[in-house]
Amino acid sequence: MLALDVGGTKLAAGLVSVGGVILTRGTTATVGADAEALFGRVATLLDESRSVAERHGHRVIACGVGCGGPMTPGGEAVSPLNIPQWRQFPLRRRVDEHTGLETVVDNDAKALAVAEGWLGAAAGEANYIGMVVSTGVGGGIVVDGRLLDGATGNAGHIGHVIVEPDGRPCACGGRGCLEAEISGPSIEARTGQPPEIASTETIERSGMLLGRARSSVMPLLDLRLATVAGSVALGFGAPFFAAAQAELARGARIEFATGARVVPGGLGDDGPLVGAAALGLRAVTRQ
Amino acid sequence: MLALDVGGTKLAAGLVSVGGVILTRGTTATVGADAEALFGRVATLLDESRSVAERHGHRVIACGVGCGGPMTPGGEAVSPLNIPQWRQFPLRRRVDEHTGLETVVDNDAKALAVAEGWLGAAAGEANYIGMVVSTGVGGGIVVDGRLLDGATGNAGHIGHVIVEPDGRPCACGGRGCLEAEISGPSIEARTGQPPEIASTETIERSGMLLGRARSSVMPLLDLRLATVAGSVALGFGAPFFAAAQAELARGARIEFATGARVVPGGLGDDGPLVGAAALGLRAVTRQ
Repeated sequence: MLALDVGGTKLAAGLVSVGGVILTRGTTATVGADAEALFGRVATLLDESRSVAERHGHRVIACGVGCGGPMTPGGEAVSPLNIPQWRQFPLRRRVDEHTGLETVVDNDAKALAVAEGWLGAAAGEANYIGMVVSTGVGGGIVVDGRLLDGATGNAGHIGHVIVEPDGRPCACGGRGCLEAEISGPSIEARTGQPPEIASTETIERSGMLLGRARSSVMPLLDLRLATVAGSVALGFGAPFFAAAQAELARGARIEFATGARVVPGGLGDDGPLVGAAALGLRAVTRQ
Repeated sequence: MLALDVGGTKLAAGLVSVGGVILTRGTTATVGADAEALFGRVATLLDESRSVAERHGHRVIACGVGCGGPMTPGGEAVSPLNIPQWRQFPLRRRVDEHTGLETVVDNDAKALAVAEGWLGAAAGEANYIGMVVSTGVGGGIVVDGRLLDGATGNAGHIGHVIVEPDGRPCACGGRGCLEAEISGPSIEARTGQPPEIASTETIERSGMLLGRARSSVMPLLDLRLATVAGSVALGFGAPFFAAAQAELARGARIEFATGARVVPGGLGDDGPLVGAAALGLRAVTRQ
């Protein structure tokens, strides 16, 4: 699989085996390039991975792309919040035309969720949510073994579950959304300090609010597991996860929901590319 | 289809055409019978419907059952809260053995949700939640055209979405769950009056809290529509739905979630039996 991860400040592309092993990896910055120049950098990265595949006699079967939202269904027009050069950029078509491969574009949080279920902390689990807590708060949801898409492909937006009805205003127009309380920028705005040097109180409050959102979501969807990746969550570490698990246990005591767990994502820096490959594989095998 | 609805105080069974028309309907009370006597009443109702089918030359292809929870997956052991005679009662097997038909048992709220998507207020919609607000608050969720089951078949429990973090204790052990705030018994406990004579303030507050739960759920699952049935919601009527829609519009302003609607269920008293039939049809056609 060719895999492409369109992040906020850098792009990564690589070659991933059908077993999920990253065989090559290259990155490039997103700054200092207009829309076309940026796509040129993408094309170069993809070409490099492709040529490695050819040298080693690997057949490349599809291209999977994880990309920040918002986007129209199928990634036909992407407008990643942190890449102002791309607004309604026809990413799927352009990658498809450049590579000649079946190309799938989807939300990067959905990609990561699929990766966690494939090879990460949710491996073997058919009912889980894979979350990311970093600049934003997002996720992807798998129920009955299937990744949920929803009406416009945006299912998984756990960042807009309300955890404090009278809480901070959210960019979405609501108030007290999880993202407005525990994303990196929200924490910095609320405490005056970046999450890297957050107090124990801030870490525990953030974990508790994450647990509260999950208390709503676990019985709603009858999930067994939540994985959490992203720089804020993984940077906070054990006290954050302990607070989340405690709140989840406090809230979700309806019988079928007991025993649900919250765990750190298991793929580290490999997650986004493995997830992009998983999206491609999902499309090819029509899971 | 043979259809059976196991409610709190009465049981209904009937014959439903594959187009969703109820051809016969019979009911019996649940009180005054032990577990076996109650199943005897069920068997009699099913036999009556069956004999009508035979008299008219209809072929009966399956039996669908909607039943109050909790239950084990597939309805192999049901323990409906309001039918104390049945605890771990093997309902699916008993109906299967009695009728000789392929028999499907599922949560009654999921049944009603499927019915709303088949012939009711969500007809033609692939992403919606069908809710019930009466003695409890439940629901069924359809995403990407598929009814969600979840790990133990309990997906759809919107009653345990937290809407007031410091609200009333819920039977589930949590606090401020939607069910603990707006179910009929919760309203009576909180206000001292049954929902039938609730004040305008109580009606509007209940609608607002329902809208708040939906503000969390609509972007999470990228749904376009929520239908709400049940005696409390339909009894409250227009002011309740207006308050719910207003709160939904206030909360869910993330772009893809705008335009989501809250509407009354469209099937009235026919909903439960049509839903039970829909469950049977779903199983036979493996939707």
